[in-house]
Amino acid sequence: MKIYRVNMTNLSFKMEEVPEEWRVLGGRGLTSAIVAKEVEPTCHPLGSNNKLVFAPGLLTGTMAANSGRLSVGAKSPLTGGIKESNSGGTAAQRLAKLGVKALIVEGIPEGDKWYCLHVHKDGVEIKEESELLGKGNYEVIHTLTARYGENTGVMTIGQAGEYKMSAANISVKDPKGHIRSAGRGGLGAVMGSKRIKFITLDDNDGSGIEIKDKEKFKKAAQIFNKGLLSHPVSGNALPKYGTDVLVNILNEAGGLPTKNFRTGQFAGAEKICGETMYETIMSRKGDPTHGCHVGCVIRCSQTYNDKDNRYLTSGFEYETIWGFGAGCTVDDLDIIASVDNICDDIGIDTIETAGTMMVAMEGGILPWGDGHGIVRLLKDEIKQGTSLGRILGNGADFTGKAFGLTRIPTVKHQSMPAYDPRSVKGIGVTYATTTMGADHTAGYSVTANILKVGGHIDPLKKEGQVELSRNLQIATACLDSAGLCIFTAFAILDYEPVSHALIDMINAQYGTNWTSDDWFDLGRSVLKTERAFNEAAGFTNKDDRLPEFFSEPVPPHNVTWDFSGAELDQVYQF
Amino acid sequence: MKIYRVNMTNLSFKMEEVPEEWRVLGGRGLTSAIVAKEVEPTCHPLGSNNKLVFAPGLLTGTMAANSGRLSVGAKSPLTGGIKESNSGGTAAQRLAKLGVKALIVEGIPEGDKWYCLHVHKDGVEIKEESELLGKGNYEVIHTLTARYGENTGVMTIGQAGEYKMSAANISVKDPKGHIRSAGRGGLGAVMGSKRIKFITLDDNDGSGIEIKDKEKFKKAAQIFNKGLLSHPVSGNALPKYGTDVLVNILNEAGGLPTKNFRTGQFAGAEKICGETMYETIMSRKGDPTHGCHVGCVIRCSQTYNDKDNRYLTSGFEYETIWGFGAGCTVDDLDIIASVDNICDDIGIDTIETAGTMMVAMEGGILPWGDGHGIVRLLKDEIKQGTSLGRILGNGADFTGKAFGLTRIPTVKHQSMPAYDPRSVKGIGVTYATTTMGADHTAGYSVTANILKVGGHIDPLKKEGQVELSRNLQIATACLDSAGLCIFTAFAILDYEPVSHALIDMINAQYGTNWTSDDWFDLGRSVLKTERAFNEAAGFTNKDDRLPEFFSEPVPPHNVTWDFSGAELDQVYQF
Repeated sequence: MKIYRVNMTNLSFKMEEVPEEWRVLGGRGLTSAIVAKEVEPTCHPLGSNNKLVFAPGLLTGTMAANSGRLSVGAKSPLTGGIKESNSGGTAAQRLAKLGVKALIVEGIPEGDKWYCLHVHKDGVEIKEESELLGKGNYEVIHTLTARYGENTGVMTIGQAGEYKMSAANISVKDPKGHIRSAGRGGLGAVMGSKRIKFITLDDNDGSGIEIKDKEKFKKAAQIFNKGLLSHPVSGNALPKYGTDVLVNILNEAGGLPTKNFRTGQFAGAEKICGETMYETIMSRKGDPTHGCHVGCVIRCSQTYNDKDNRYLTSGFEYETIWGFGAGCTVDDLDIIASVDNICDDIGIDTIETAGTMMVAMEGGILPWGDGHGIVRLLKDEIKQGTSLGRILGNGADFTGKAFGLTRIPTVKHQSMPAYDPRSVKGIGVTYATTTMGADHTAGYSVTANILKVGGHIDPLKKEGQVELSRNLQIATACLDSAGLCIFTAFAILDYEPVSHALIDMINAQYGTNWTSDDWFDLGRSVLKTERAFNEAAGFTNKDDRLPEFFSEPVPPHNVTWDFSGAELDQVYQF
Repeated sequence: MKIYRVNMTNLSFKMEEVPEEWRVLGGRGLTSAIVAKEVEPTCHPLGSNNKLVFAPGLLTGTMAANSGRLSVGAKSPLTGGIKESNSGGTAAQRLAKLGVKALIVEGIPEGDKWYCLHVHKDGVEIKEESELLGKGNYEVIHTLTARYGENTGVMTIGQAGEYKMSAANISVKDPKGHIRSAGRGGLGAVMGSKRIKFITLDDNDGSGIEIKDKEKFKKAAQIFNKGLLSHPVSGNALPKYGTDVLVNILNEAGGLPTKNFRTGQFAGAEKICGETMYETIMSRKGDPTHGCHVGCVIRCSQTYNDKDNRYLTSGFEYETIWGFGAGCTVDDLDIIASVDNICDDIGIDTIETAGTMMVAMEGGILPWGDGHGIVRLLKDEIKQGTSLGRILGNGADFTGKAFGLTRIPTVKHQSMPAYDPRSVKGIGVTYATTTMGADHTAGYSVTANILKVGGHIDPLKKEGQVELSRNLQIATACLDSAGLCIFTAFAILDYEPVSHALIDMINAQYGTNWTSDDWFDLGRSVLKTERAFNEAAGFTNKDDRLPEFFSEPVPPHNVTWDFSGAELDQVYQF
């Protein structure tokens, strides 16, 4: 495989050999290794010294189920720390098929022109782009699909990325021509700062990936794939209801943050839950289940149609529905679906933007529950880049500061997702301590706290949460490096043969002899690399804390956030 | 003396004895000690756990010349660190005459009501206020002077403080009824967060301050006062031309940052320099020289009239004129005077706002040189609290982030003042390392670098700058604790009897036997206290660095910022 390196300062391309140290790295492990090695930690995230790195996972391009996730890395304009944001869609598998271990984009062009990149088997073409400038992601993807054909991969930024907003994401075309996002941390702004509107990927005649022991790989992959399908969460709940199955579960548990984290239960939960979504999709002839990338066997995605049975959105996730729904006290699933669609089109992270809208409601910019107001702010302000749009597009923390507010649910300037850290304490530990800023996917303690996967740890008590979060953060760094969907974790945690099969696949592909310890060493090493970067960027353990207002008790359990700094600091004792 | 403590949460007042550890502390030394002891370093600066502390200096209220400066302290909403901002005006001497060692304001009221405080010999009355809400500082001061009489002290916030903008200052009525400001670090936002529009001070029948050895004090004060008058800078240049005398001096030295720090010389310098200002004031029947507080012998202030000989502004400082002038390439002194007046009225720091306007010009919000545009942004946006106003009112860093810009001249989120750190390297070391964020007054190395006061150290070379900045930062912490104007430093640095007289005054007043070493120990201890607070708030040495773009050479000397991190870290090796 090769490293593809694009320099936007002098508009040049170089193909490089993969250094030995990066051979058995992929996905997050590789993007973080490259950012840590090549990016000055104190640089301005939107300046010429930041780099944007795209990498398929270690298993991407193989027959391993759910292995087609793309990692995107850089110094984050939102958190100021290292960032890996991952996405489904078609890009990772195209890169793998091209034999591209990582695509590194560095520098910033002089002058005001914008560009696009075309990635193919012989390298990368850097071309001026003006036609699609200012356009939304759907138009970009449709136009490029028409221009280059159905099979072309696309990574693009919407208006938010062009404006270099800290909530801007990078959108990735999925197998249905819809949108997946490397959502968190403002990586769309980094792409915008390099004045790249989109990247197309043509994997024709790609050299592909090598598997050292194909037979062994095939056997392990079969066990792995079957395991995913046999687990009740990944084999049953997620395919049917999507991630939105969690609304009722979290509401029941009192952990569904409502009205900007004032309570843990939402009166309108029934109207926005996965079961309601499923009925609605079916009655409107939508598609209740499909995968975000080829080879996904969980298929937790869907196509959600409007009342006239026309496409409204897809990849309609629990966190989005929670945020614009319970978080903002909006109980209309159609409006939330519209909001999701507009966010995808503008290219802005739904979790960050949901947090922003909660803060906007906190500050009286919008009344609570005003879903139409959210649509208006997205279309008339953020998309247009007005002054108010510039405030909102830079996220919840920024919006709070603009309006002098203090109830801002963020860690490391990143908005908190869909689980109350007081009543799901394991996820609170993850929010506080992950290198990524408040991020549920970085150590999804909801597993043992709520879903009783991988054991059960009482979500309302402190006992065991630090260890749980630590172990999950390590395991997640492994999965993110493999290019695996995070939902493979349910079967991996519960079924030993599945976790063995995963390591067998790695060994079969790379000719390694890794044990389970070696595998988790990879995860530990990724976290240490990221943490060292953040420290060099100026982070301390003071950044591993939740905002003050979580000392308020949250109904219905009336629990508070009660971890001491010293307790949280133990997460990184390994 | 007493501590006056106001709790805004339950709207109560308490008079407390002064703890022994605070007896020989005052001004910055006392505000920083109180903030460090009583404020949780990680608290939200606009939340109920922050405190706002007002303290007169150790010598305030005595016959020591230029000893009437007020220190205001809190955790800064701009920098996120500890802040002491000091001001002239009448408040410090009123507090001293009332025997108030410090006024501490804590908590935040429930509900939406606003309040005012009335400070007098028996304590503090907390009253609801609505009449003056939304009004500018000039109207507040005129109304309160009419209501309570000429002799009443006033500290107030303008619209910027009400909006809790990070650039909001606290305005202090001066002896002429004009405005002085505790300008830097957004302390007006902290006052606004506590919903206090203004504080009036009635010093009638105040218990005053005690001087242990009056005779000794008087003798020393005479030497001190004479010394200030005999120094060419404080006795001659400043009284005649004001601080604006520095325009020509810095322009000549190539250290006048022009067009957002692109060059060190401004073609329009002649039109905005102190000499031009003096001629203009004289021809328009203004007042070229008066003091910002009673007992000032330097009298570097002035009243600047418009073309029709009507009052336009006063306290019209070099840094303001530089910032809106050379910094923004505006060469019209009348427009800059209008801008100064509007900033005072809105209650917003001129240095931060000048930096913000440079950044706004950088981002194309205004054309370079558009002074009328600056007036418009102040009046129509910041004063009105529009969305654009919310961006600009939160300072240069915030504005840069809103618009995705990278050329932002700040340290610790605070705008850099009027001296290019590359061609006046000593001040660059101060900008980088002071606990306050970029702040020239914290260690005014311009003395030895440019003015050849206290020796001469070549401004273009690195040699000696770290030690110079360190010594001046220590000495300044002493002066700020004494309540002395920073311009007393010229005579103190150059004339040994003056520096002895200063310590003699302290010893005479407090019955101490301090040597010069003890005196500087006070300064060292203040800096260490502040630095410890910042560390506990999450600061590291990575915060003691200048922005990346200072690696560009600056004409005319084409020097770059070339200090290593290790070199800068030596400043705090004491």
